[in-house]
Amino acid sequence: MSDPQPQASLQEIRDLLKVFPGPDEASIQAAREREGQLTKPPGALGRLEEVAEWLAAWQGKAPPRVDRPRVAVFAANHGVATAKPVSAFPVDVTQQMVANFQHGGAAVNQLCLVHDAELRVYEMALEHPTKDFTEGPAMTDSECATALAYGMMAVEEGVNVICLGEMGIGNTTAAAAVCHALYGGEAADWVGPGTGVEGDALSAKVAAVQQAVETNKAAMTDPFEVLRCVGGYELAAIVGAVIAARVGRVPVILDGYTCTAAAAILEAMLPGALDHCVVGHLSAEPAHAALLGKLGKEPLLNLNMRLGEGSGAAVALGLVKSAAACHAGMATFAEAGVSGA
Amino acid sequence: MSDPQPQASLQEIRDLLKVFPGPDEASIQAAREREGQLTKPPGALGRLEEVAEWLAAWQGKAPPRVDRPRVAVFAANHGVATAKPVSAFPVDVTQQMVANFQHGGAAVNQLCLVHDAELRVYEMALEHPTKDFTEGPAMTDSECATALAYGMMAVEEGVNVICLGEMGIGNTTAAAAVCHALYGGEAADWVGPGTGVEGDALSAKVAAVQQAVETNKAAMTDPFEVLRCVGGYELAAIVGAVIAARVGRVPVILDGYTCTAAAAILEAMLPGALDHCVVGHLSAEPAHAALLGKLGKEPLLNLNMRLGEGSGAAVALGLVKSAAACHAGMATFAEAGVSGA
Repeated sequence: MSDPQPQASLQEIRDLLKVFPGPDEASIQAAREREGQLTKPPGALGRLEEVAEWLAAWQGKAPPRVDRPRVAVFAANHGVATAKPVSAFPVDVTQQMVANFQHGGAAVNQLCLVHDAELRVYEMALEHPTKDFTEGPAMTDSECATALAYGMMAVEEGVNVICLGEMGIGNTTAAAAVCHALYGGEAADWVGPGTGVEGDALSAKVAAVQQAVETNKAAMTDPFEVLRCVGGYELAAIVGAVIAARVGRVPVILDGYTCTAAAAILEAMLPGALDHCVVGHLSAEPAHAALLGKLGKEPLLNLNMRLGEGSGAAVALGLVKSAAACHAGMATFAEAGVSGA
Repeated sequence: MSDPQPQASLQEIRDLLKVFPGPDEASIQAAREREGQLTKPPGALGRLEEVAEWLAAWQGKAPPRVDRPRVAVFAANHGVATAKPVSAFPVDVTQQMVANFQHGGAAVNQLCLVHDAELRVYEMALEHPTKDFTEGPAMTDSECATALAYGMMAVEEGVNVICLGEMGIGNTTAAAAVCHALYGGEAADWVGPGTGVEGDALSAKVAAVQQAVETNKAAMTDPFEVLRCVGGYELAAIVGAVIAARVGRVPVILDGYTCTAAAAILEAMLPGALDHCVVGHLSAEPAHAALLGKLGKEPLLNLNMRLGEGSGAAVALGLVKSAAACHAGMATFAEAGVSGA
């Protein structure tokens, strides 16, 4: 957020949820009709057929196209990570990894090369972490609105699928606090090793999540307030990007636990708000499965990954591109002179 | 097999199993050492890290490379498909689909474009189907050896990963007969809808599998004889390709039920013979899961696909390329100046 700050109030952003478009029924019908004529037994491409239809529904295009995918990675720092031993890595690693993204050395860089995706890294005031949310709200209204609006900028004209990811030492603690605030249960239900904490550090992480939710309980009057109180800048940016993608008709591939927890804010605001999103993979972070259960989302991949930085979404992009390519490029029975069943 | 016929006896091909190389321990060590230095928490890329190490082990290279992947699709016809109503499609569809592959209209063509893979389609004497194996052996010794040797030709110098697939109306019946012969149980345990048979046709398929195994019982003295008696040309070619890939140090991505059933012949001959193979996906064909259980293989993907033609392997190629790219291209902690845990 060293760029000129986008201006929007939290209320203006909330109001966008009222104008969320639904799936495009004409494109769904056209996609189904085409799918039934392609040279394969009906249904033989399984989930790829569902993905093709989902792309058509949310792009509002038949056939859908995935020729300009973007991977957007939002990076931010968390006050709680300085205040408490919640991560296996020092907070400086956020900045160091942003430099690694910029120099092409991270996993997500290689994945973008493999899958021909444009990588954009959004550095969110790394020198100004959010406040330690065990003591009070992580963000002010204005900070949260700014972060949301910042995330909305990642959805640009011409991008036809967007993968969302994050980098932020301490952000699985924020994700756990968001889930605990949204869904209740015990703090420990939503806390996992993240980058690799165990033992006392894992207990400290559970305690931080519990304390964060207790401290901010009164203020968290709706899901956006949950985001503001126990989220983080990159979580808010992801929420913003998911909103902008819905309005801009850009299907979204969500990444792992932190990314999905951020998106869950929207589903809690408005059921169905994530219908234009697929979850790229099931993270090895244990609470991701429970979170996906709450959202009713079936991930595309299950590869025991837990890196963040959009990596699982970028791997899943290969499947989404495969789905679009089969749907758009295959010959029909009539075109190929193949006998039907 | 309209090309000049490769010459090899079944015994010469069997003998190749005695000279199967093992994994390259030096490359495994080098891959592990590099993996531990890359800019991510240890293990955070999950299965992709395992795939990178597996590639190193079987290519005998560190880092491994996946810059010349090939998808080889073997097409053949089956006497049983003319004699019995085992498929939802007429046998002419094998030839028609080969033409579709040649003209770029099939799913596998689109998948090869997405994943930058070279597609080779091997047409195996489509006008001469195997004999109806409910009446006697599908192939003579010489036919089986020729088909095996034909498959071996798909593994050429320079190809560094090979995806194997098949096309052949009736070949899930052959796959079921191979599994029933190798693993016992009831014929029905190994039979599924294939291209979409149900009701009476499904019962006819179960009966054909049962009859095939009973008729050929005395002749099926070892797994290669199972292949000869109840397999098919494309199944034999897949066995040949898996053998040549092992000897030539080319890691293999297997496709669905028919492809895996063919490969199972080798594992039954020599435990560990498929260690250089991963299974690209779990097919929706119900017996695939049981077969993978017998082989101790965990598929990379589970997308409810059941098309064959190498399609599941080709989608999984995207994951294998992702694994190789992360392993070879990521910066180390030292190179990137990132603090370790």
